[in-house]
Order: sequence, then C-alpha cells, then structure tokens
Amino acid sequence: MLKTSAYAAAAAGKPLAPYSFEQREPGPHDVLIDILYCGVCHSDIHQARDEWGGSIYPMVPGHEIIGRVRQVGQHVKKLKVGDMAGVGCMVDACRDCSSCRQDLEQFCLKGVAYTYNSTELDRKTPTHGGYASQIVVAEHFALKVPAGLDPASAAPLLCAGITTYSPLRQWNCKKGDRVGVVGLGGLGHMAVKFAVSMGAEVTVLSTSRAKEADARRLGAQAFEVTRDEATFKRLAGRLDLIIDTISAQHDYNQYLSLLRPQGAMVLVGVPPEPAPVAAFSLIGGNKRLAGSSIGGIAETQEMLDYCAKHQIVSDIEIIPIQKINEAYERMLKGDVRYRFVIDLASLSGANAR
Amino acid sequence: MLKTSAYAAAAAGKPLAPYSFEQREPGPHDVLIDILYCGVCHSDIHQARDEWGGSIYPMVPGHEIIGRVRQVGQHVKKLKVGDMAGVGCMVDACRDCSSCRQDLEQFCLKGVAYTYNSTELDRKTPTHGGYASQIVVAEHFALKVPAGLDPASAAPLLCAGITTYSPLRQWNCKKGDRVGVVGLGGLGHMAVKFAVSMGAEVTVLSTSRAKEADARRLGAQAFEVTRDEATFKRLAGRLDLIIDTISAQHDYNQYLSLLRPQGAMVLVGVPPEPAPVAAFSLIGGNKRLAGSSIGGIAETQEMLDYCAKHQIVSDIEIIPIQKINEAYERMLKGDVRYRFVIDLASLSGANAR
Repeated sequence: MLKTSAYAAAAAGKPLAPYSFEQREPGPHDVLIDILYCGVCHSDIHQARDEWGGSIYPMVPGHEIIGRVRQVGQHVKKLKVGDMAGVGCMVDACRDCSSCRQDLEQFCLKGVAYTYNSTELDRKTPTHGGYASQIVVAEHFALKVPAGLDPASAAPLLCAGITTYSPLRQWNCKKGDRVGVVGLGGLGHMAVKFAVSMGAEVTVLSTSRAKEADARRLGAQAFEVTRDEATFKRLAGRLDLIIDTISAQHDYNQYLSLLRPQGAMVLVGVPPEPAPVAAFSLIGGNKRLAGSSIGGIAETQEMLDYCAKHQIVSDIEIIPIQKINEAYERMLKGDVRYRFVIDLASLSGANAR
Repeated sequence: MLKTSAYAAAAAGKPLAPYSFEQREPGPHDVLIDILYCGVCHSDIHQARDEWGGSIYPMVPGHEIIGRVRQVGQHVKKLKVGDMAGVGCMVDACRDCSSCRQDLEQFCLKGVAYTYNSTELDRKTPTHGGYASQIVVAEHFALKVPAGLDPASAAPLLCAGITTYSPLRQWNCKKGDRVGVVGLGGLGHMAVKFAVSMGAEVTVLSTSRAKEADARRLGAQAFEVTRDEATFKRLAGRLDLIIDTISAQHDYNQYLSLLRPQGAMVLVGVPPEPAPVAAFSLIGGNKRLAGSSIGGIAETQEMLDYCAKHQIVSDIEIIPIQKINEAYERMLKGDVRYRFVIDLASLSGANAR
C-alpha cells in the first residue's frame, strides 16, 4: 500500500486538516500520479460539509487534479512515466453498460466510482481526491494533459471545463450563435471562454455590474443585469442557447423567455430547491430545458486537446493547502476570480511517505 | 361579405347557441371552404369559458376543420373547387419573420392569427372557427386532405394529430425506441398511433387500468398505472422519449426518472400551475424537458400525407352541433373515446345564407 499525505475533513462540521491514508499500489492497468495541482470546486464544500447528504469521512476532496506520472502498470498504453496527466470527477465505472459503451461513463448504470466521497467498484474501499500528494487511477480514467497547457491553470478544466464544454457541444454551439451565460463564477467564466472560442456572440447575465469588465475581457459582447426586470423584456426571444451556472434559487421561466423558438437552456448549477416551470414557458416556442453533468472520458480528453489548441485555461488564484479553509470561506462570498488551485508542493514535509 | 351560420359562446358563462356572423369574401389568394366536420378540442372549452383569460366574444370555437372547397381566388394554386381541405389552429401569420421562414408559423414573431378567439393580421377583425357552415382562409394556411382519409375521422388531425406528430419527429422517434405516452385522451391516443406507426415500442402511462384494453388495441405494448409508486421504480431509466399529454397537475420529476441518459420528455399538455423541477432530475443523465406547440403548415401537410399513407385517423364520436354543450360536459368527465367531431350538416336550415 502507498502511504499518502493529504488534507481531509474528519466530519461534517470540521475544518480540513492534515491527514494520511493508504491507497493501493498501481496494478497492471493503473497509473500513479504525483499530484502537482488540484482545483477547488464548489462541490468540494457541499460534500465536505455533507450538504448533499451521505458524505463519507474522513474525506479528502478534490477532483480537478493535474500531476506527473511517476509509475505505470505493465499494460498501460495511454501514458508513460513523466507525462503530465489529469484526473477529473471519476476514477472508475463498469465500462460495459450501455452508458459506458456510449462514452458516457458518468451515467454508468452500475454506478460510478467518483474520485472522492465514494467507493471503488468493490463498493467498499473509500476513494480519496486530489488534496493529496498522489493518486492511483485506472489508465482509462486518467487524461493526457497536452503540452502547452499551464498545469496549474489547466487543473479546473477537469471539472469546470468539461462541465461547460460538454453542453456547448451537445447543443451544437457554433459561429454566430447568441449564447447567454448565466452567472460568472468558476463555471460561468469557462462557459464564456468556450462559447467565444466557438464563434458565439456571448451575453453574460449577472445579478450586478460588478463583473462586467471581467466578462468583456473574457470575450463577452454583452453584459446584462438580471435584477433589472427590463432586461428580460429587452432580450426576449434573442438567445439561441443559455448555459445556466447558477446554484442559487432563480426563476427558470424568466430565462426561458429569452430563448428564440427551439432554443435550449442547459442547467449545470443545482439550486437547493426544485424550481417551478410553467408548461407554457416550454410549449410556446418548442423550447428545451436540459441538464448536463460533466462529460465522459473521451469528451474530457477532446476538451483538453481543444483547450491546448485554443489556449484556453481557467483564471486561477494559487493557494497552499494550508489556506484551504480560508479559501472555502472566500468562495462562499464569491471572492475568487475564478478558481482556487492548490499547489500540492505545499504539502511536502508534512506526513510525507 | 359572407353571412355564416354557426354556434357561438356569447360570454364566458354562457352555453354555446346558434349565431350568425359575416366574414370576408375570398380574395385572390383565399379559399372558401364548406365545413363538413369540426373536431372538439379541450382548448375550445378553456377558451369558450375564458379559462386562459382574454377571450373575445361572441366566440365561434373550432380549429379541427375539414370541408370541401367551394371557391378559390384567382391566384390560388394549392387547391381547386371540390377538393377536400383542412384548417387547423392558424389562419394567418406574417410569413416573413425568421420563424415563418423556417416553416414555424406558429411562432410568428409578429403574432399569429389563430383560427378563432383571435384577430386577423389587421389586429382588429375577429376570427371565427369551425363550429360554422363555412370559412374563408388564405391558401397558405389551408391543408390538402389526401384521398383515402375519412373526413370526419381526419378532422382531429388538424390539432390533436399535428400536436403529437411534431414532437415525435422533432425528437427523432424511430424503430425500436421505447416511447412513453402519458395520458390516453384526445392527444394521447394519437401519440400512441403515431409512435406505433414509427416502429416504437409504446408504453401508456395512465392513472388507472380503465383504458388498458384500448391502449393495447391502439398498438401499445405496455400499460402502466401511475398511481402505483412501484411503477416508477420498475421503469426507471427505461424510456427513450416521453410524450406528456396531461393537463392536470403532476410531478415532472417522477416521469423524468423514467428516461434513459439523454432521453427527452415533451410536454403537450398544460397543467394549470407551474410544476417544480429539480435540477438534478435533468442533470443526472443529461435529460431534456421540452415543450411542443402544434406544428407549422408544411409539417401539418406532411403529417396529413403520412396519415393517408399509414391509414391513421382519430377515434371519434360524431355529434350534431346541437349536442355541443353536452359534449363539453362529457369531455370534462373524460367520457369520450377519443374525440368528438361535429357534423356540420346538422347546422343546415338554421341561419343559412
């Protein structure tokens, strides 16, 4: 077994603190990755604090992992020692069900092994995420990080990146499309970058004007304030596609009114409560309200390659692991532009193997 | 002007009663149709009773119209005297906006002239529907009724037919697809017939077993009772597409749970109140909740031609116009299998021009 140093939440109410655990030695199809950087996702907070229920403790969060391959099993073909590799939200799935065979491992009918706060496919061994010195993962679930991507800024691509890239692809975002991005945070700022890179005319919809300059720097052509009712009247029927990244309660019907006939609004944020949808909001205009959850491994690799080609990474603020609890508090206040990334070099010395 | 005999609601609380009105003589691009049959749609009741607000009285309802062409304007090409013709929910639109140019006249950006309870494009002249002896309509909005379709049974195709055909086409219903039809009424029974004709394996979802024999006669392979919670567990993730025809309040999340990953549920019924949708119901499985409103004129013609080829019509009960108020009461109790159709011959004598 490999002794691994990490930061973990010991229980729902506890701050994250140094921790060490053991994980398996790499098998013939596994890679062992020395973690260099790990992005901090909002879902890390939700799960560390058991806000979605069913959390498994001690919990080592983190599913936006970038590192260097230190060891590969004898059958590994995709990666070699020294390669830059990534791990996202999943570390295993059955690979045989209809979802897995369609490269939609995130919907594995037998149940995904998530990167943390989950179990391996034996449904017993807890999984631990990227707030750690190293990770062993099946080759299939490791991503190749193309040369030319800054490893720290690329880390958030593994969750925030694929979460916003996939719906734009599913809904065929293309040159000239009018795309609305609701909310400019970790997800929203990636959605803007991707949509702009695909040739769309992007409108950012935000509660206040605070992030207007940022939105324009990221390539948005318009910025609209959603606290102003007039915005919804002025933009009615104007948008082809909306990516809704908001996890606060809001009125879907208002946003659906902004779509042209046959337009789609895709939810990637999860408000705490179900939100009322009027049938007429969808029937009037053959509109679509959809959800999208990360992306399969093949699409995640496609997204990383796309990012290398188009030089797209996340806007980040690097922190040492010792600042993770403070970072959580700042995230809850929206005080990060736009993603914290942990430099795992800060772990060294403490609990080192 | 053409004096026209009809049945009309004089006000929201009033039963329908004999009425006569004048409509324009056919212009160079118009056709004049002697109405033979008119289907009775649930929306006739809603509008005659002003349940959606804004009703215009006196109101002559009816938008499932089949009749014989008596006169055509000099520029009319599509139809000739003696042809069997249909009129659906629309009698005019701008024909120039982006929706109209995409054959989606029902979403005309300048506003559709509906067949009744609406105004012509002058936004002044009231329109009157098919509970009448005749109708003058622009050639573009008249449909050709192919030979081989029984005119009475074909009348409901103009609304119930296109309303269910269109979403099956939009969502690419094909051989082997598992399609759920929620509710077996005027819309639902057409959805079953269409989906079966497209090669789908159809499951009817209904509150009780009362209509099981009918569902199977119409070609459904399965029938499930939705009052039984176990149904939702047993069918979880099984369906590719759901056509939801219910206009009573119900829980969309339950039905979304029946969809496979990337599946779609299409609303064609309008419950009285908005219904709560949990983001996770859509995000877990990249699912889609959509609406669909009738269909454009080109698609309505395609549907009629498809019906002639596949010998699809509505199951009907023919009534004289004098029984319309009684028919409304029976419809509200679900006591019709599956559409009332008015035989307009019953009008003759009264107020004839």
